[in-house]
Amino acid sequence: MTVTDLNPNDTKTVGVAILGMGTVGTSVAQLLQENADEFAHRIGGPVEIKGIAVSDLSKTREGIDSNLLTDDARALCTRDDVDVVVEVIGGIDYPRELVLSALKAGKSVVTANKALVAAHADELAEAADEAGVDLYFEAAVAAAIPVVGMLRRSLAGDQIQRISGIVNGTTNFILDAMTSTGASYEDALAEATRLGYAEADPTADVEGHDAASKAAIMASLGFHSRVKFDDVHCEGITNITADDIAAASKAGYTIKLLAICERITDSEGKTAVSARVHPTLIPNSHPLSSVSESYNAIYVDAEAAGSLMFYGNGAGGAPTASAVLGDLVGAARNKVHGGLAPGENTYANYPVADFGEVPTRYHIDMTVNDRTGVLADLAARFSAHGISLRTVRQEEQERHENARLILVTHQAREADLQAIVDELSGLDDVREVNSVIRLDG
Amino acid sequence: MTVTDLNPNDTKTVGVAILGMGTVGTSVAQLLQENADEFAHRIGGPVEIKGIAVSDLSKTREGIDSNLLTDDARALCTRDDVDVVVEVIGGIDYPRELVLSALKAGKSVVTANKALVAAHADELAEAADEAGVDLYFEAAVAAAIPVVGMLRRSLAGDQIQRISGIVNGTTNFILDAMTSTGASYEDALAEATRLGYAEADPTADVEGHDAASKAAIMASLGFHSRVKFDDVHCEGITNITADDIAAASKAGYTIKLLAICERITDSEGKTAVSARVHPTLIPNSHPLSSVSESYNAIYVDAEAAGSLMFYGNGAGGAPTASAVLGDLVGAARNKVHGGLAPGENTYANYPVADFGEVPTRYHIDMTVNDRTGVLADLAARFSAHGISLRTVRQEEQERHENARLILVTHQAREADLQAIVDELSGLDDVREVNSVIRLDG
Repeated sequence: MTVTDLNPNDTKTVGVAILGMGTVGTSVAQLLQENADEFAHRIGGPVEIKGIAVSDLSKTREGIDSNLLTDDARALCTRDDVDVVVEVIGGIDYPRELVLSALKAGKSVVTANKALVAAHADELAEAADEAGVDLYFEAAVAAAIPVVGMLRRSLAGDQIQRISGIVNGTTNFILDAMTSTGASYEDALAEATRLGYAEADPTADVEGHDAASKAAIMASLGFHSRVKFDDVHCEGITNITADDIAAASKAGYTIKLLAICERITDSEGKTAVSARVHPTLIPNSHPLSSVSESYNAIYVDAEAAGSLMFYGNGAGGAPTASAVLGDLVGAARNKVHGGLAPGENTYANYPVADFGEVPTRYHIDMTVNDRTGVLADLAARFSAHGISLRTVRQEEQERHENARLILVTHQAREADLQAIVDELSGLDDVREVNSVIRLDG
Repeated sequence: MTVTDLNPNDTKTVGVAILGMGTVGTSVAQLLQENADEFAHRIGGPVEIKGIAVSDLSKTREGIDSNLLTDDARALCTRDDVDVVVEVIGGIDYPRELVLSALKAGKSVVTANKALVAAHADELAEAADEAGVDLYFEAAVAAAIPVVGMLRRSLAGDQIQRISGIVNGTTNFILDAMTSTGASYEDALAEATRLGYAEADPTADVEGHDAASKAAIMASLGFHSRVKFDDVHCEGITNITADDIAAASKAGYTIKLLAICERITDSEGKTAVSARVHPTLIPNSHPLSSVSESYNAIYVDAEAAGSLMFYGNGAGGAPTASAVLGDLVGAARNKVHGGLAPGENTYANYPVADFGEVPTRYHIDMTVNDRTGVLADLAARFSAHGISLRTVRQEEQERHENARLILVTHQAREADLQAIVDELSGLDDVREVNSVIRLDG
């Protein structure tokens, strides 16, 4: 029997359990019910919600049959009538336990949980492999922008060299607001909170942790290696000032919080994977520079494909539900027709590069004594560290004895760049290092 | 046995036949050989080229074992040691015959042939379904930009509303050159030919036929219906003048050749699918407007995902090979592990909309007699056709008795817009209708 011949009513119903009824879970349940016929056709058989695990049974949920609700997620996960478990709870330890027990019970799992996947992909993948079921997590990176599918499938015949992306909407909103209005970080954060782009506790976003989870997932998939959250070097945007933004803008750059994953060759000639998140200056001519508001975009360089960019809403209930439901169709199709999606595949097993080994470029803004010979002295110090300068800009200051010096380096080892910055801070001629921001693109 | 446990040497070799040794075929063969180990790991078993069909056996092919070459494509397609056939010949009738015979012999097929898929997807899909094998064609639309995967899989849980894309690099190069340099169509085409962006006979590109094939494929996948090349309304760029570009630019628009696929409700209230290709004015604020040179980009609106955009090289040997090889990994995985990719699924079976029923907007540039009351008269005529005007701009001409009138309509039925343009051309007060270009975004 072939896919198009299937009469949805002839085949076994695919039973779905939804764990969690927040914005995403609610959206998933509603769309799955509203478009039940469409799903049946796309899967090749009917799909039905068998249960929804919630923490508060007393809360009314509009449009949801209350008989479906249960507060016993553990029991729901392994129930006989459930074939696919959708995990949209959030957190790490509790969903990890639930997802593992579901996989071990032979259920395929669709999760939107980036923190869970970034921390425990190895253990989850192993459980899925052993049980011969699918583990899908498209929604864990940039919601409906199909980053996972692109890395796992579309580029499966190519060699990915680099992935750089704006994968956190909150910080992009804040940086974009600072860029377009000249606002301070604090004011832009307050505005983001007021408009619902930032949570009451914005730490995970503004410190880059959310982006770091996504970087770990992208690096693992892109380089067929195991990169976990803890392997990602992570710097947030809390130190970015209105001055930094203004200086960047004047020089033709935009500051974005980038998640950068790349394959590098370290100083011993070995291949390693680098995954990092930090504020980054990118030229205004680069497509990522014009990604505004809370949008996300992922830029990929691959050997044969060249450069590709994917752009869209990277968060929100409906876009995340779109990704979850796309995965659900895949997992349910495999339950009906057989077959397995490409699973975790870390055959390349590249080590994670020491951050000091990563080649990068610095944009250094400092205030120096305005005396003859200062520039020559500083340039000699860069040279002694093996770092060459790409551009040097000197501006006179209000106080005539000071000069503002803005240096952009060529690419060099991160450790060497850090060393020169440390050295600069200790020099008598350097009054202040105003900002050090990495540069890309 | 699970995917990650597989030792590539334990499993059966997946045999590959390549039909055609042009730019794409050569690139596919080279990358498949160079990265054989990577492919084995990703597929879960070794992959090997068993034969390559060429038309000229006497030609030397660097890096290719001449024992693999054959001029008997028909025999190669159905050989016992071949599991997957890669068709990169081009044309329609001959590859159709080869692909059908391969599918019927139980080989999965990967094709980059947009014309073949746009003309014969139904027949090919039926043959694939009957044999229980895969038919992949990611490379048929915009090379390595994963449009097919995105429509077939990533958005499988969503309802697509509209797809609009720049899917032909040649015409985008020409229009971009006209926009940035003020060149005439003829000069820009000559430049494109000189640089290798346009073929010696550019008809298929500049008349929009290539884009129309892609529109048919995207509309079929996006709306789960059968849309063929002949169903696509198609207008090329050969009538676009430097004046049109300049006028557009002045008004804040860019002219792009768009392939637009959408679900519409016709005047009888029935849902239908529209697929069309025509030069289109888009506001400079729209992300598609900044797609320059020969790049492609596809913009998708979906119910839950919102707006997504995919950008990259839409043509060329290596990017096309990337898409072919990604498909090959998928087809080979299924040969090793079982399972089938989502096939053609036209369950929704929407009819193709009559072009006259399609809602669109016109930008009309005309020279009229500069007498009192002309504008009022013309506005009344639009109103009589049920068309309201969004903007009206009047410019004085060198000859004072003439005025240049630039009108932008609100959305209306294509047939009504065509009717008013026909009527305008016949009026004494209208000296000339300089240009009529549809407007989007």
